[in-house]
Amino acid sequence: MIRVTIWNEYIEEKMYKHVAEIYPEGIHNCIGNFLSEDKNIQVKCVTLSMPDQGLSEEILNNTDVLIWWGHQAHDEVTDENAERVKKHVLKGMGFIPLHSAHGCKPLKLLLGTSMCLRWKHNEKEKLICVNPSHPIAEGITEPVYLDQEEMYGEYFDIPKPDDVIFLGWFSNQEVFRSGCTFTRGWGKIFYFQPGHEEYPIYYMPSIQRIIKNAVKWAVPVNRRNCDYDNKKVI
Amino acid sequence: MIRVTIWNEYIEEKMYKHVAEIYPEGIHNCIGNFLSEDKNIQVKCVTLSMPDQGLSEEILNNTDVLIWWGHQAHDEVTDENAERVKKHVLKGMGFIPLHSAHGCKPLKLLLGTSMCLRWKHNEKEKLICVNPSHPIAEGITEPVYLDQEEMYGEYFDIPKPDDVIFLGWFSNQEVFRSGCTFTRGWGKIFYFQPGHEEYPIYYMPSIQRIIKNAVKWAVPVNRRNCDYDNKKVI
Amino acid sequence: MIRVTIWNEYIEEKMYKHVAEIYPEGIHNCIGNFLSEDKNIQVKCVTLSMPDQGLSEEILNNTDVLIWWGHQAHDEVTDENAERVKKHVLKGMGFIPLHSAHGCKPLKLLLGTSMCLRWKHNEKEKLICVNPSHPIAEGITEPVYLDQEEMYGEYFDIPKPDDVIFLGWFSNQEVFRSGCTFTRGWGKIFYFQPGHEEYPIYYMPSIQRIIKNAVKWAVPVNRRNCDYDNKKVI
Amino acid sequence: MIRVTIWNEYIEEKMYKHVAEIYPEGIHNCIGNFLSEDKNIQVKCVTLSMPDQGLSEEILNNTDVLIWWGHQAHDEVTDENAERVKKHVLKGMGFIPLHSAHGCKPLKLLLGTSMCLRWKHNEKEKLICVNPSHPIAEGITEPVYLDQEEMYGEYFDIPKPDDVIFLGWFSNQEVFRSGCTFTRGWGKIFYFQPGHEEYPIYYMPSIQRIIKNAVKWAVPVNRRNCDYDNKKVI
Repeated sequence: MIRVTIWNEYIEEKMYKHVAEIYPEGIHNCIGNFLSEDKNIQVKCVTLSMPDQGLSEEILNNTDVLIWWGHQAHDEVTDENAERVKKHVLKGMGFIPLHSAHGCKPLKLLLGTSMCLRWKHNEKEKLICVNPSHPIAEGITEPVYLDQEEMYGEYFDIPKPDDVIFLGWFSNQEVFRSGCTFTRGWGKIFYFQPGHEEYPIYYMPSIQRIIKNAVKWAVPVNRRNCDYDNKKVI
Repeated sequence: MIRVTIWNEYIEEKMYKHVAEIYPEGIHNCIGNFLSEDKNIQVKCVTLSMPDQGLSEEILNNTDVLIWWGHQAHDEVTDENAERVKKHVLKGMGFIPLHSAHGCKPLKLLLGTSMCLRWKHNEKEKLICVNPSHPIAEGITEPVYLDQEEMYGEYFDIPKPDDVIFLGWFSNQEVFRSGCTFTRGWGKIFYFQPGHEEYPIYYMPSIQRIIKNAVKWAVPVNRRNCDYDNKKVI
Repeated sequence: MIRVTIWNEYIEEKMYKHVAEIYPEGIHNCIGNFLSEDKNIQVKCVTLSMPDQGLSEEILNNTDVLIWWGHQAHDEVTDENAERVKKHVLKGMGFIPLHSAHGCKPLKLLLGTSMCLRWKHNEKEKLICVNPSHPIAEGITEPVYLDQEEMYGEYFDIPKPDDVIFLGWFSNQEVFRSGCTFTRGWGKIFYFQPGHEEYPIYYMPSIQRIIKNAVKWAVPVNRRNCDYDNKKVI
Repeated sequence: MIRVTIWNEYIEEKMYKHVAEIYPEGIHNCIGNFLSEDKNIQVKCVTLSMPDQGLSEEILNNTDVLIWWGHQAHDEVTDENAERVKKHVLKGMGFIPLHSAHGCKPLKLLLGTSMCLRWKHNEKEKLICVNPSHPIAEGITEPVYLDQEEMYGEYFDIPKPDDVIFLGWFSNQEVFRSGCTFTRGWGKIFYFQPGHEEYPIYYMPSIQRIIKNAVKWAVPVNRRNCDYDNKKVI
């Protein structure tokens, strides 16, 4: 059983009517619903407004893979909670920041770069697989067309990814490394660009397939039980 | 002094009037001309129709970096000559296959993949730097616009590059890893997609700058003097 | 069901008594035996002396992962058969060359380098995991000690691996990238250094675990059904 | 002219007599001396006890490559100063943390991992080049023997390096990725393990050559002049 925790800041769905119409129960529940169709996946949804911002030691201890959606409230996540997420990734927890979560605190702590990019609303995107042997690309070797998406464009200030699985072509002459993996410590990270809150991206079967694939890929292979301190050899 | 040998199959410039108008002395001489502006670069041009197809042991022994342009006559290069180029790369010689040289024999021997891609004439390309700290990107952090270029699109069947320096955006909804580096043995390889023979791509200052940068980067760091056989340790 | 084909040149086990004592039924059957303990793995063993050298189109069409052990007869494998293996890897088949199979023809065709290394019999090896989040390292985060092994030492002339999972420490002051992955086309490759025929390496539970892990990792994610030719976009 | 700033915490050379005998003017001045032999390199030495801990905006603005040696006082470097170093790296400044500087604050901010490792005093090390085409390996393709060095052993908790240039073999059955490169933003990082303060490592010509090579390699290729904020495309 894969224990997936879906963290959502859950603000825009409550603040904007047109977002609420797309995700009436929040993006987290939309993602939780399609993941739950897989009986090997157990979903828990948490949000920014919950106790401990939904990021307590207990919750993370019971998480194999953490999915994260955030946008306007990155700074409201406490440094302590961001550090806790980072430590769990280093110990093995999988981490899947989606779309505007490129700028979330835990990812910035883990990757060390500014994560800056270029952006523009309402463009067409074509998502193209350039890594057909990667488990996250299973079943997704043909292009995925997004009629409306927020364009994210290069230069995207990330460390060199372990693997670039998807490149995004955008109608306004921009490209983007839209699906990238990183390893930090014993944990695996998949950043996936699609999923602006104003478009029903997470209802698309291909996008759901990619996220499911990513969850399976990100499950810890080994769990680190040592401390992080340097160790003297005798 | 960097000794650059420019190999060109030199067929289309003689066969087609509209190509000859763009490159009256052949693509090799166009490239040779702008490289020669740098007084630290010494250029030698060779073509398929020369003795030893321009790829003799003596020529390669006196080459630091080999630039290669070929298209319709890949199969006419002998296996022996292709193997010789490969061996010199493994010993340290830099290698810069341009555009349709993605399918040339020495590169296929070195990379081991099919090099297949998708293609279409006469599209717009925007070349975007995704690796601003790489020496080949020196001075090229802003996009380069090609009004007319042959589109090359993914999936491009190459091994995982050491570095992807430029991504290509194309007007027909395609993307491409347009500038990629590989290391094989002691030699460095830069594959660069722009340069279809029907468009005056190699006259563009930005393209020239990239090729010059690549030449400097590809100069052998160390020269391998051992044989390639396995070596028993005593 | 994972269909694993184990190819062995099967010469030394018949030629040398002390090797036969270790692997009376050949290295292939030793490996086949421990893999068959997993009921999701279906094993077929083939050897150099079989029709088509055990590498017919039919056999490879029914192979998900090909394990290869060879040493002194690399040159006896026909070019045609080596090319066929290469093509199946590019279409998705997993490929696991073991020990002296670093010099086998299909691997050299796929990687493009000389594969040269340094070697010496009868040293101690300590195999150290440097990539604890990789599926091939599952359960193998602690060192594996080999009391007797053939030392393979750097410089090992391979392309930059996608991942180095294990480093080998040797008692004669040598190190080696002992477990490396590569991707070529749609296929995954794992080269694993341990397994000299004079020592009972493939009976060690940790070594068996690594090979089992590698088999599961190398199963094709996607199968390529297109041809390898360039494709014109209309 | 390459402007190199050498930062040293400069504590152990003053605290311990046996260290002072090796580095009477501090490790920074030893390194500064051999770098200054190259007339294209301009050296400035700074230490922890200076104003702004030697890390003011003005100093970093005039630095192309920052070399860092620190050990017991990592925590005394202020968060503000560590962040400033990080930002300059992201803008292009080269960064070369040596030996125990694996644990320094700016490197941890840039790499995001725990940097944990195993350690032991007074072992033999053999430094082995596994990347002969990398500029940092220029002239260093043969092994370098260190009669006495502090062993650093795996698992070393770093992100996957862009390149591993040197592997370290140690007499106590340990190996280490002793010379690794990383890119963060527009800046290049080289971590180099040799250089425990109790042994005269930085007087060795091969070690000096490697550090000189690294300085030349780490010089910014492009300088980033934009801010780090996300940028809206109009």
